[in-house]
Amino acid sequence: MATNKRIVLIGAGNVATHLGRGVQKAGWEVVQVYSRTEASASELASCLGVPFVTSLDEVCTDADIYLVMVKDAVLQELIPDVVKGREEALFVHTAGSMPMDVWQDCACRYGVLYPMQTFSKSREVDFASVSFFVEANGEPELEVLKELAASLSDKVYEATSAQRTYLHMAAVFACNFANHMYALSAHLLEKNGLPFGAMLPLIDETARKVHGLHPRNAQTGPAVRKDGNVMNKHLEMLAEEPELREIYKMISNSISHSERNEV
Amino acid sequence: MATNKRIVLIGAGNVATHLGRGVQKAGWEVVQVYSRTEASASELASCLGVPFVTSLDEVCTDADIYLVMVKDAVLQELIPDVVKGREEALFVHTAGSMPMDVWQDCACRYGVLYPMQTFSKSREVDFASVSFFVEANGEPELEVLKELAASLSDKVYEATSAQRTYLHMAAVFACNFANHMYALSAHLLEKNGLPFGAMLPLIDETARKVHGLHPRNAQTGPAVRKDGNVMNKHLEMLAEEPELREIYKMISNSISHSERNEV
Repeated sequence: MATNKRIVLIGAGNVATHLGRGVQKAGWEVVQVYSRTEASASELASCLGVPFVTSLDEVCTDADIYLVMVKDAVLQELIPDVVKGREEALFVHTAGSMPMDVWQDCACRYGVLYPMQTFSKSREVDFASVSFFVEANGEPELEVLKELAASLSDKVYEATSAQRTYLHMAAVFACNFANHMYALSAHLLEKNGLPFGAMLPLIDETARKVHGLHPRNAQTGPAVRKDGNVMNKHLEMLAEEPELREIYKMISNSISHSERNEV
Repeated sequence: MATNKRIVLIGAGNVATHLGRGVQKAGWEVVQVYSRTEASASELASCLGVPFVTSLDEVCTDADIYLVMVKDAVLQELIPDVVKGREEALFVHTAGSMPMDVWQDCACRYGVLYPMQTFSKSREVDFASVSFFVEANGEPELEVLKELAASLSDKVYEATSAQRTYLHMAAVFACNFANHMYALSAHLLEKNGLPFGAMLPLIDETARKVHGLHPRNAQTGPAVRKDGNVMNKHLEMLAEEPELREIYKMISNSISHSERNEV
């Protein structure tokens, strides 16, 4: 795909790295990278073969789209300086939890492009299988964002800021918290001289299962069986790990409260 | 593979159904199914084309292996009646959390065959990708169990009862608890009119990631970024869901306590 839209990347973290590479590969023209951290700016810029800057004053003023991918906490304070002198451009952030109207006091044309995915620097992302959620403050802006998302993935949805907030929180449970369960599992195995690798087939099957079964109906294990003997034994084994012990209790309780329809 | 070993299945739940079909398919001779619940016994027996009984007195006495796949809570009380009159046979249970020596007062030849997997009745299991952990009270018995496991999967490990207990608990975290995070995510989405299906690419990637990255290093999201704004907003959104709110807080705290080495 070819496009004449010129894009500046604001930020050089995990999301910026993957999305920057993705949009460039999809044929969009990335013209500059900004990050206040020189090492990050330099690394991403050299990977894309474009210049970088570490001060917002030096960000070029003639790009079409400013794609802002910074920590949620930083976004709001950055906005006035990103927009200043570039009022004609389209401003886009990628943070699932930030509402679109963070832009409304400064910019005229703005929107959100939220890729619901987990990005780690060392791991390639296949955008074709990523769900994108877009929102914009005008029809032409929405069309640009749909085009941008569609150049990366087939799974493009419109979502309001309110819906996106819930999507983001649901993703924290399904991704960040599920991953932490893997981490706790790895900790228990390693402490007992057992390889985490032996757990991978089970992790894979647990994820595959919910493609065909609702997770409530896919649930197995002592908590859903209400097998108090096993659960008490596990709690005893966790006597020296008070944090894990509380997590075990709380999640087991929550599982046993869930309504379930075996299929 | 051909074998002249005759196997009786004691139990007709999820594990018995999948493992019974698996061993029959691998060439072992399943001769009978026992379950005190007639409907379950009948269903599994007819699927395997073998007779069933609902009383332990009627279980045949001349099988080589009695494969006991009942709830952990029931196993111990069942053992004397399973062994009585069949003292020459090999007795095997499949429960990860039960030690091998539950058999020692009644039987002479016994062991454990633990398939570390999540079994749901309506879902086929591909045993080739399941990790099996075996243990027995004698060398010839261990050989039989290794042969049995190896006929189903390449991933056969020896594990002591103590190791298996930790494996089982680690599996509760990586499988049962991870699945509950999917269930809570589905609940939040459904409550807000959003499809759980949009979450599947993220769930898949979260599982795939830990094949190459340690889960601690694969962690993303507000808790590991220590992004208090986002976390406080999520906690506000969960004001009417006190259980989810506590789970959110506790797991986020645990993530932020984890040592992490970005790679």
